[in-house]
Amino acid sequence: MIDSVETANAVLREGSPALFAALSPLGRRALFPQDIPFQAAEARGKRFNGTIGQITDGRGGAVPLPSLAAGLAALPDEARNRALLYSPVEGLPELRRRWREWQRRDLPGGGEGAAGAAAALSTLPVVTAGLTHALALAADLFGGEGRVLAVPGPYWGNYRQAFALRTGVRVVSEPAFDGARYDPEALSRSLAGAGLGAGEPALALVNAPSNPGGYSPSSEERRVLAASLARAAEERPLVVLCDDAYAGLVFEDGVPARSLFWDLQGRHPNLVPVKIDGVTKELAFFGGRVGFLTFALAPGSPAEAALESKVKCLVRAGIGSPVATSQVLALGALESGRATEEVEAVRRLLAGRYRVLREALGACDGDLLRPLPFNSGCFALVALGPRARAAGLTAHQVRRHLLEAEDTGLVAVGDEHLRIAHCSVAEEDLPELVERLIRGVATLSAG
Amino acid sequence: MIDSVETANAVLREGSPALFAALSPLGRRALFPQDIPFQAAEARGKRFNGTIGQITDGRGGAVPLPSLAAGLAALPDEARNRALLYSPVEGLPELRRRWREWQRRDLPGGGEGAAGAAAALSTLPVVTAGLTHALALAADLFGGEGRVLAVPGPYWGNYRQAFALRTGVRVVSEPAFDGARYDPEALSRSLAGAGLGAGEPALALVNAPSNPGGYSPSSEERRVLAASLARAAEERPLVVLCDDAYAGLVFEDGVPARSLFWDLQGRHPNLVPVKIDGVTKELAFFGGRVGFLTFALAPGSPAEAALESKVKCLVRAGIGSPVATSQVLALGALESGRATEEVEAVRRLLAGRYRVLREALGACDGDLLRPLPFNSGCFALVALGPRARAAGLTAHQVRRHLLEAEDTGLVAVGDEHLRIAHCSVAEEDLPELVERLIRGVATLSAG
Repeated sequence: MIDSVETANAVLREGSPALFAALSPLGRRALFPQDIPFQAAEARGKRFNGTIGQITDGRGGAVPLPSLAAGLAALPDEARNRALLYSPVEGLPELRRRWREWQRRDLPGGGEGAAGAAAALSTLPVVTAGLTHALALAADLFGGEGRVLAVPGPYWGNYRQAFALRTGVRVVSEPAFDGARYDPEALSRSLAGAGLGAGEPALALVNAPSNPGGYSPSSEERRVLAASLARAAEERPLVVLCDDAYAGLVFEDGVPARSLFWDLQGRHPNLVPVKIDGVTKELAFFGGRVGFLTFALAPGSPAEAALESKVKCLVRAGIGSPVATSQVLALGALESGRATEEVEAVRRLLAGRYRVLREALGACDGDLLRPLPFNSGCFALVALGPRARAAGLTAHQVRRHLLEAEDTGLVAVGDEHLRIAHCSVAEEDLPELVERLIRGVATLSAG
Repeated sequence: MIDSVETANAVLREGSPALFAALSPLGRRALFPQDIPFQAAEARGKRFNGTIGQITDGRGGAVPLPSLAAGLAALPDEARNRALLYSPVEGLPELRRRWREWQRRDLPGGGEGAAGAAAALSTLPVVTAGLTHALALAADLFGGEGRVLAVPGPYWGNYRQAFALRTGVRVVSEPAFDGARYDPEALSRSLAGAGLGAGEPALALVNAPSNPGGYSPSSEERRVLAASLARAAEERPLVVLCDDAYAGLVFEDGVPARSLFWDLQGRHPNLVPVKIDGVTKELAFFGGRVGFLTFALAPGSPAEAALESKVKCLVRAGIGSPVATSQVLALGALESGRATEEVEAVRRLLAGRYRVLREALGACDGDLLRPLPFNSGCFALVALGPRARAAGLTAHQVRRHLLEAEDTGLVAVGDEHLRIAHCSVAEEDLPELVERLIRGVATLSAG
């Protein structure tokens, strides 16, 4: 029974010393309070239950506005009811169980059984309000003033908001690409150069397939990456946040689709992998805002209970509880028996766009534009070439010109890169989009 | 154009000096970054739009898993599409507009027109991930280490997590009830006794109808409350957070249902009211997680733009974007033309339970149990009477006994109070629930 923050911290220190050492001040003081949701959970099933501040029919059923429930009329009664009422703070139990199975689907024997279970520890995922919320919770747990987070560059700008702006984390970054070659040791070089004190805990972020790069490391690159992180963990507790937003969207044979989370666990006692994923891209449910936060701890262990209590405290403090409506819809997909094939259909759609985009980018004049390697996810990244940069061009100028002169929107990433989101462009439009990009850069470089 | 944090802060200092003075360090440094959502907004409507990392058909349409979209089959195609794709960070424009109308429905002439508009300023609400998220955003904007928040007691425990645990706010509280009488000056007494420095900004929280009290002040009590806050604002910038979770659920003639937000604005230049509300209780959509954050600034003003940019930054940093699915469902209700009557039907349901509960609590022996005054919302609060306290009873012991011996769940609030949520108990069950409560306390007090 985790009934005090002292007990929770003692249990974590015992069960996962490196994870405990890396907790932020906020992470140390968080504990799910024994107030309304706690007491309501204890009262579940009682003949008279006057605990919860939600309007029901007195028997646990919703009392929805007919005009609102009409939008959910296609759901079975029981599911519609759950969609309208509060979710538990940690998420719907069935969704948590199903998502854990989904996460483990690529492991040998689903990761269960003697060998699998030993090799692949994962907690029951806690449901969050979308993937960014899971990142922000990780920032609350492990971030804080002065804590170092290493991220390969260029990286998704919102990491800065979630970690640095909110909690005071110091983000350090080395380029993920050395020219046209992916560098699996960018993270460990960032950590080595960060001026960390002896034994000072640190964070590293792994995002594969990546945003904005659209890149997943090869088997050999994964091996080097994991080994370099294990070496970095010789020096300090190292929490590795695996942002698996684009999990499964891999388009080349020989590029592993499996999360790095599974490779990193058990590598070193100081290496603490955390899995951050969601239905956003994996189930193509962008508006639903259902994410998950998962740790490499034994399910049912005291350390899992202590950490889950901390996460629930932070969820309750920040958003009350996660959205039930989208959880019910996502659960419907996972229970349908058709999720695997339907997700594969989305992957094939993107694979088609990926191939057309790769082909079209092959026409770039490397003096003006240099596509970085990409093989997965939703994006491709192109760097301005030497002639464009000699002309003083920045990615923002190119973006502005494309909007105004080419009726085309791309995202500028820093001064030197443009991101193409092929996930939101029709396959047949991609060649012309690339033509306009090439023409835009050529025009600006000549002018 | 708010394009730098310096500009935003200058615009706010000019447009609302007291609000600016009360911003936390995080509130001061927040500004919606010009990265992906910003650039995607600029690219909307372009012939080729490769900005957004969401999977579409290439023409802005969703590519849903059939097994997931099936749950939304009752929605019109366009609404289903919006439910599946990302919401703007600030929320769906139509929902924001409709909710502003809904908030202003009790103002003379909808608050528009010459007199109304001058008397009732309110920004376009920013959509949040439920009401607690709006509270947490207010804590981020105005809280921080050592900042004082006054809340009348007993209060909803999650204020502690949202403000104190997350940001370091110091919560101060005086009892809202002096025996059986509501005390409208509890807040100003808390502020006066908090040891604040001269001119030091502070926060106060007004929650009517209240949780756990189920109380809304009378017209005269509102007048005293507003005047006491205006007096407190003579001393310092005072941000008054109006937690309007239970807005409209008022059951007695002569008890105003209108938000205090409208009474407080324009009262004093140092008095900064903030409106925090949501569809959770107002549209009986608990699982939907749609809340709103609204300020008493002129819509379209530079100060509104600057503050909205800060709020959007914090939304993006913490959760990415709010849930689209529930916004679409809530919008359906507001657009149906039936929301007012359907919400009134829910209010009548609760009014019936309220009357039965009030009657049943009249049978309490005041030596054992003393119901506090209640007239609105979802709850009633009962205090342990002198004999129960003389017997050493605590509310937690009563709660535990009711669970174990009476098959009944209530919430213990501190050592001396129990909360009855009549909103989740059938009208015909309330008399027996109260009988069991009375029997439980009598048994424990005799034992």
